[in-house]
Amino acid sequence: MAELTSKEKKKLEKLALLRHSMSHVMAAAVQKLFPEAKFAIGPSIDSGFYYDFDLPRNITEEDLAVITENMKEIIKEDRKFEREELSRASALEMFKDQPYKIELINDLPEDATISIYRMGDFVDLCRGPHVESTSRLNAQGFKLLSVAGAYWRGDEKRPMLQRIYATAFGDPKQLKAHLEHLEELKKRDHRLIGKQQDLFSLHEEAGPGLVYWHPMGGRMRVAIENFWRDEHYKNGYEIVFTPHVGKSWLWETSGHLGFYKESMYNPMEMDKDDYYCKPMNCPFHIMIYNDSKKSYRDLPCRWAELGTVYRYEKSGTLHGLTRVRGFTQDDAHIICTPEQMDEEISEVLRFSLFMLKSFDFTDVSAYLSTRPEGKCVGDEKDWNAAQEALKAAIERAGLEYKVDEGGGAFYGPKIDLKVKDSMGREWQLSTIQFDFNLPERFKMTFVDKDGTEKRPYMIHRALLGSLERFFGVMIENYGGAYPVWLCPVQVQVIPVGHDFDDYSKKVWKKLRAAGIRAEIDTGDDNMKLKIRKAQELKYPYMCILGAKEQENDTVSFRIRSGEQKNGLAFEDALKEIQNKIDTKQMP
Amino acid sequence: MAELTSKEKKKLEKLALLRHSMSHVMAAAVQKLFPEAKFAIGPSIDSGFYYDFDLPRNITEEDLAVITENMKEIIKEDRKFEREELSRASALEMFKDQPYKIELINDLPEDATISIYRMGDFVDLCRGPHVESTSRLNAQGFKLLSVAGAYWRGDEKRPMLQRIYATAFGDPKQLKAHLEHLEELKKRDHRLIGKQQDLFSLHEEAGPGLVYWHPMGGRMRVAIENFWRDEHYKNGYEIVFTPHVGKSWLWETSGHLGFYKESMYNPMEMDKDDYYCKPMNCPFHIMIYNDSKKSYRDLPCRWAELGTVYRYEKSGTLHGLTRVRGFTQDDAHIICTPEQMDEEISEVLRFSLFMLKSFDFTDVSAYLSTRPEGKCVGDEKDWNAAQEALKAAIERAGLEYKVDEGGGAFYGPKIDLKVKDSMGREWQLSTIQFDFNLPERFKMTFVDKDGTEKRPYMIHRALLGSLERFFGVMIENYGGAYPVWLCPVQVQVIPVGHDFDDYSKKVWKKLRAAGIRAEIDTGDDNMKLKIRKAQELKYPYMCILGAKEQENDTVSFRIRSGEQKNGLAFEDALKEIQNKIDTKQMP
Repeated sequence: MAELTSKEKKKLEKLALLRHSMSHVMAAAVQKLFPEAKFAIGPSIDSGFYYDFDLPRNITEEDLAVITENMKEIIKEDRKFEREELSRASALEMFKDQPYKIELINDLPEDATISIYRMGDFVDLCRGPHVESTSRLNAQGFKLLSVAGAYWRGDEKRPMLQRIYATAFGDPKQLKAHLEHLEELKKRDHRLIGKQQDLFSLHEEAGPGLVYWHPMGGRMRVAIENFWRDEHYKNGYEIVFTPHVGKSWLWETSGHLGFYKESMYNPMEMDKDDYYCKPMNCPFHIMIYNDSKKSYRDLPCRWAELGTVYRYEKSGTLHGLTRVRGFTQDDAHIICTPEQMDEEISEVLRFSLFMLKSFDFTDVSAYLSTRPEGKCVGDEKDWNAAQEALKAAIERAGLEYKVDEGGGAFYGPKIDLKVKDSMGREWQLSTIQFDFNLPERFKMTFVDKDGTEKRPYMIHRALLGSLERFFGVMIENYGGAYPVWLCPVQVQVIPVGHDFDDYSKKVWKKLRAAGIRAEIDTGDDNMKLKIRKAQELKYPYMCILGAKEQENDTVSFRIRSGEQKNGLAFEDALKEIQNKIDTKQMP
Repeated sequence: MAELTSKEKKKLEKLALLRHSMSHVMAAAVQKLFPEAKFAIGPSIDSGFYYDFDLPRNITEEDLAVITENMKEIIKEDRKFEREELSRASALEMFKDQPYKIELINDLPEDATISIYRMGDFVDLCRGPHVESTSRLNAQGFKLLSVAGAYWRGDEKRPMLQRIYATAFGDPKQLKAHLEHLEELKKRDHRLIGKQQDLFSLHEEAGPGLVYWHPMGGRMRVAIENFWRDEHYKNGYEIVFTPHVGKSWLWETSGHLGFYKESMYNPMEMDKDDYYCKPMNCPFHIMIYNDSKKSYRDLPCRWAELGTVYRYEKSGTLHGLTRVRGFTQDDAHIICTPEQMDEEISEVLRFSLFMLKSFDFTDVSAYLSTRPEGKCVGDEKDWNAAQEALKAAIERAGLEYKVDEGGGAFYGPKIDLKVKDSMGREWQLSTIQFDFNLPERFKMTFVDKDGTEKRPYMIHRALLGSLERFFGVMIENYGGAYPVWLCPVQVQVIPVGHDFDDYSKKVWKKLRAAGIRAEIDTGDDNMKLKIRKAQELKYPYMCILGAKEQENDTVSFRIRSGEQKNGLAFEDALKEIQNKIDTKQMP
């Protein structure tokens, strides 16, 4: 990730100033509508600003319209932002009816300067700065976007407030572009596309944050898994399968019950012992390693598993596929000698980039997290060697990167890879993480060339991260229009009328037998409507069959890109599709 | 399964008589060694006989030798078996020092005839019959096999006794053949081969009955899974993926908490609710079905999942891969209209036989279990229709079958398929099971052609049963020498000396890149030893590379069958192997 230039920084600061001033205008407008409103905080954020209010009733769509009008008037009135500093006692007196402000004042350090900003009759506790006056704000340059519940200070034990999200720009054109961007994000929301394309569902009543992959999503997952396993084998990995539950002994030995229990599902008591659903796969892979004595000749072990893990996340934080309670890590552990470390790290990084590129994520940057101060396990020498290996690998790969000094976990340094998607958003996907802890705890050893027992190095890595989260990110990145190899339906067979149902079924069966993901629409809709439905679902090939095709035993295609191909021999059509599948191309 | 002929039956009865008489001889021999022995029971069983004893100390190998000698003497003494009937009071008096016999006598009905058999100085409570005298037994025709713990009356709260297993035949030649058969079974034990070929492990300390698939087992499982998924798609199935845990609501709705709780893992309490690891996949597939309204056009749904389930089995009953606590069902649910039932059942049965045949299980017989008396759900009309459909399908498939009248579950009739393995043992693998319960409980519906809402039929089916158990059975069936497509190592690359390590690595990498499962042995052993090791592991191809091969850029094969092929071009070698893989043949 490139650092911002000073010009870009200035521009962002200006925008933040404008938005924060706008949040005061919004608060004043809310006060006009709800004179009894209690005010919490109103910061600018990356995409706009918000303000949290405690109001006598829920805000409606109509309220938002009124608040918007009020804001436009306030801007027109050209109110000045006037700063005033005052003593704690005066501040407490001034805000005596505003309990949240009182709490904020009380939390300020002894010697803090307490300032307020007046804007007409609206006064707010605020450090500033702001624009000079509301005439500097553009009455056509802002928009109230949504209302959401937000706990005071993010604490679920404190009152639930109403947060109005809004955005603002200096220029209405910028606002328009931003709103279009938001509109496009909405259309690409994986929850929406997941419903449209019937890919997956979640069921609160059967357990929140647990994903059900429907047949169409299942087809995509199988395509991803097959590709993933084949490439792992070709890249020197072996596939293992391990249980989803383990007895307390395992989690005590690994230390998870000490430092990770909060994130685990609660135990099942059986046979006078506790069993836990696994939050991670590592201890299981180590059990396989320790099942027989290992020699330097057996290393490196590169063991991968599509391992489904369960973690307890607060239900309020769950979101579609991107924040769930059960997910399948594309996990692997590399167990190697210290001498093998450099090459292994380089290979993992190369392989990560290959995997990400296979899903059209090419804008990748790296974050290197190093040894934290204080308690951490492992020799400083080993840490340094590992950090150097990670850094060298990143540089050899030519990636831009940032170093998070001291940001590593207590058990080892790591690289995170972030990708930028087609909408400009960043997602952390791959992780490559050293572990100086588990080899020690599980007393892992290998016999080296000199006949002595040594401790191997262990590296955790996940390339896609979690299949569920990756699937969500991928859906949004492609906006539902996938390359052919990933499409749940690669060919939609469409008879132009019921007279051609039989011929169409024949073609459909031939496609399925060839391993092509095909569906057939023998419904009563007319052809145009059938085509439109397939287009809306973003199926790459529509195979439209009528009199001519039946006579000549051929097929005609309409392609998602708009192209049309008529009178193809079945084998030629198949070859074309298969080629797009094999090369992972768009249709 | 063919019924036994009356001649066969007679032969078996004669063998049982001989063996049961032999168990008295064994008991007498034990009494000679341990005069204070307490006797429990000594029946004949399929493969021989046993007797349970309560003894002052554990039986050793040396004891078995002494008991064997004692038995031979008793046989030589030509003792007569003499029956005597007596009153309950006399019997209780006679066995007053034998608490197990006393318990047996007390459990006899009021009007029972109580008989004893004398054989020299040894007297046993017994219904008989026996051979006339011990001269009818063959002193060279029996063998004591093993000692195992066994609870009195199979109840873990009662005393643990010592059970001596033994076998006997009229002819020493038959004994020899039987012992060779047992020896072969031992060699084929999947736990032994699993260790030799490094396929899997289980770890009591991390949770009994939970299977860890090692890299070599993982390769085989991936081959099985890929084949399974491809064939399911081609046969009209879709693959789904569902969570491993579900909240109590799901299991209350399904009824599992009512009728299956004993077999489930205990709950995890979270968010004031109970979560359970799934013992079955059905409720999850139904959640997908009910996620959107279904029309007759959407049916049949054929949804398959390699779903890992967890069931609580008593730890004493666990055995290798064949009785475990966590296993992956090759599960599917067919949801169809009543009109579709006939064809669906026929197709499932055809597909089952195809799957079994793909693993060389061709000796298959069927068991049809019908409506039990008393409480069961669903209309009798539906039951009859389903039973007729199952029966018709079995007959169309030309399978021999037995009907277990009234042996069905309360929720529907079923077909079980049993296969006979290469050692003549029967294993139940496939199940096709109707369910009139869950569609009702989950209120599943579809809109039929006439616009009315109807209840669909639901069929559970598993073809291999559980991947773990199937894997165990398959290993024993093949005795570790698999067809090429299943082999964990299809080609073992063997350089004849270190001079050829580099060339060998080149060949090995080319094999891996072609997707062939290959390993390389660059150890310090000489070539002959390397070959012997590969042979012992039953690898189908050994690729032996020396000077000639390096010069001509060719490869030489030694094949598991004994054949040898020298100086092959790499591409030709690859073609031959690939052909064996594609056609599922032995090398």
